[in-house]
Amino acid sequence: MSDKTFAIKGNIIWSKDPQTLNIVDDGYLVVQDGISQGVFEELPEQFADVEVKDYSGKLVMPGMTDLHLHAPQYAFRGVGGDMELLDWLNTYTFPEESKYADLEYADKAYTIFADDLKDSPTTRAVVFGTLHVPATELLMDKLEETGLKTMVGKVNMDRNNNPELDESTEESMAATKQWLADVKEKGYKNTQPILTPRFTPSCTDELMAWIGDLKEQEDLPLQSHLSENRTEGAWVKELAPWAPTYGDTYKHFKQLDGKPAIMAHCVWCPPEEVEILKETGTYVAHCPNSNAYLSSGIAPIRHYLDEGINVGLGTDIAGGPELNMFTVIEEALNDSKLRWVYVDESLKPLSLPEGFYLATVGGGSYFGKVGSFDPGYEADVLVLDDSDIKTPIDYGTEQRIERYVYNAQDGGKVEAKFVAGEQIF
Amino acid sequence: MSDKTFAIKGNIIWSKDPQTLNIVDDGYLVVQDGISQGVFEELPEQFADVEVKDYSGKLVMPGMTDLHLHAPQYAFRGVGGDMELLDWLNTYTFPEESKYADLEYADKAYTIFADDLKDSPTTRAVVFGTLHVPATELLMDKLEETGLKTMVGKVNMDRNNNPELDESTEESMAATKQWLADVKEKGYKNTQPILTPRFTPSCTDELMAWIGDLKEQEDLPLQSHLSENRTEGAWVKELAPWAPTYGDTYKHFKQLDGKPAIMAHCVWCPPEEVEILKETGTYVAHCPNSNAYLSSGIAPIRHYLDEGINVGLGTDIAGGPELNMFTVIEEALNDSKLRWVYVDESLKPLSLPEGFYLATVGGGSYFGKVGSFDPGYEADVLVLDDSDIKTPIDYGTEQRIERYVYNAQDGGKVEAKFVAGEQIF
Repeated sequence: MSDKTFAIKGNIIWSKDPQTLNIVDDGYLVVQDGISQGVFEELPEQFADVEVKDYSGKLVMPGMTDLHLHAPQYAFRGVGGDMELLDWLNTYTFPEESKYADLEYADKAYTIFADDLKDSPTTRAVVFGTLHVPATELLMDKLEETGLKTMVGKVNMDRNNNPELDESTEESMAATKQWLADVKEKGYKNTQPILTPRFTPSCTDELMAWIGDLKEQEDLPLQSHLSENRTEGAWVKELAPWAPTYGDTYKHFKQLDGKPAIMAHCVWCPPEEVEILKETGTYVAHCPNSNAYLSSGIAPIRHYLDEGINVGLGTDIAGGPELNMFTVIEEALNDSKLRWVYVDESLKPLSLPEGFYLATVGGGSYFGKVGSFDPGYEADVLVLDDSDIKTPIDYGTEQRIERYVYNAQDGGKVEAKFVAGEQIF
Repeated sequence: MSDKTFAIKGNIIWSKDPQTLNIVDDGYLVVQDGISQGVFEELPEQFADVEVKDYSGKLVMPGMTDLHLHAPQYAFRGVGGDMELLDWLNTYTFPEESKYADLEYADKAYTIFADDLKDSPTTRAVVFGTLHVPATELLMDKLEETGLKTMVGKVNMDRNNNPELDESTEESMAATKQWLADVKEKGYKNTQPILTPRFTPSCTDELMAWIGDLKEQEDLPLQSHLSENRTEGAWVKELAPWAPTYGDTYKHFKQLDGKPAIMAHCVWCPPEEVEILKETGTYVAHCPNSNAYLSSGIAPIRHYLDEGINVGLGTDIAGGPELNMFTVIEEALNDSKLRWVYVDESLKPLSLPEGFYLATVGGGSYFGKVGSFDPGYEADVLVLDDSDIKTPIDYGTEQRIERYVYNAQDGGKVEAKFVAGEQIF
């Protein structure tokens, strides 16, 4: 029997739909060859022989997907919260990312990042590297070893850069090709490449067009940033006077083409841009901690959900200072409430089940059938020990997961983690 | 030599003024009989004989004051984030607080609360109990044992209550007198009583007048709530049509009389109310986590600071779901940024040194000379181990404390804690 075939016993929680949690107490999640066979109140007869991993009394939930974060920025997380996006990039981010030309530095930094991501409640992540090919491959090597499933991008950026973090259009193209060839040869099992034009201000139209063509030819996923900050938006208008919206600067070059793409932030999208997100099936990576930290604003996630747009959550390290996805759920709920108070009372705040959904199925679906325990889903599983979130009240599972989200860091502990059926710890 | 006389060696940080941090690396904080003698680069000759507690390389900062929290609500922290204030009180809070009529339940719950508060980065706290005298005295017994310095209030509430959590005006007065007499007899060293009318909707004018008289006669501190939520504000207008503002419903009864009083929240104060806060020296307990969690809003703290109003920070357990004051600093900064974006661009966001100041000196000053290491201050001290907030960057102390604030829960550890010179752990 495959070691990816087993059952997990515990108090099992997963999303039924965005508004509702499924809960089976003392239930069995059955996994065969890494794939969920569903959750059962009793172990079904045909699985009577599988190993039962007994986590009775613990909370068992799907792994979470961090849909947007920058690995090279992890080193300075929590420093530099006194600026908005563009100044923050020039002052803190670009100087730090330029250090990744040095593989020795990259090795130190990415070892810390990969170790901490492995220990976190994240099972899947979509990651920005830097423009440097060797460092990005090193990052992929390290992430491969964690057992987490990740997408990683060598960043493209050929304009408006500082001299230490710079590539010409031709260099950017050649480096991208080299990187993709290397990755193919390495034959990773857990990590895969994702095209990563930094954002429109950093990329010439020539480079953007080339990346769009490459996306089409190679059928690759793509990630970038969209309408994060008001000054950024005004700058894009200057840089691309031909584009009706910021979103068109991607769509025009076939980067938003109806195949998987992630746009991080989407705080200030005008209606025409929302239409682009919708019609192209683009994923919004909602990063509320970052959007508060960098004084960007609050994305109208309720509106996006009403429109049927794909939404997941991201830490946006180091725009967001914390790697723990539970804090992202918490901030997403809080900020949706503040937006309801101050911006638009017609958009009601997100609920706990909705936050849970976004962190699991919402972002997970970018990887396929991920983020649920329904039959056929890849078995990404977290076992949570909430015994240090003490209370005299005998709460049921629904309240326990709610309390866990808000107190994950004040007593919560991820006791075990599985990715596609493989036990990580 | 008193065991409250010693020196602490480490990287020492405290507020110079709200905008600036003092930092002395490898410095010595000298404490004599529990009182700071100042921070020195070298151990002064006259203190050459004192024990040096060597925390070289660690961060050493003043203890933090949690200026507003409800001990009986700790049991349900993190549950019930789907409602605004008044519904939340009726649905979750009042039923839970009614349980404290049962001393056995109170003992279980308050043991957890006192233990967790002791372990937290808080050294001082101003705490709501319930209306029950025995449970409130039990809470005070338990807090006394922690070594933390606290003020605790038996809650007064004689109108608009549910039947399980109710007292008549006469009962409220008699119970308050009994409680104050008991407390005097117990002779606590670390905990003291604070008058606690719940908030105007819960107290008749008759009771409010009596409490105001008592405050004056006994020279007692007082705490309550003010302008937290818009619906609450409208209700107070109905209940007290004679009062020009919600603030006047306290001031009229001599509860805001120029002597120490704390008003929690102050999210929606009109200019006349801000004037009352200012002229009476009232402390605003800013509780940003709660104000987001309960969809209340964001208090204009920059405005209050500009007006010279006293401001400290509070967790507002269980309006705020977390006990860790570092998360309150983080949320105070984040929400001041969101307020700047959406409400008033003339009020610039709070800075990290300002958040640090509010959590230490800001709230600490309600206890006297507390929250600083300047000579003459009571020695409340936290020793922080940030070694698990890993980075390849060799950060200085200023960046390390900034990173600690944002990642306190993802790797930070309070290694030692002192209150008025007494080591708690």
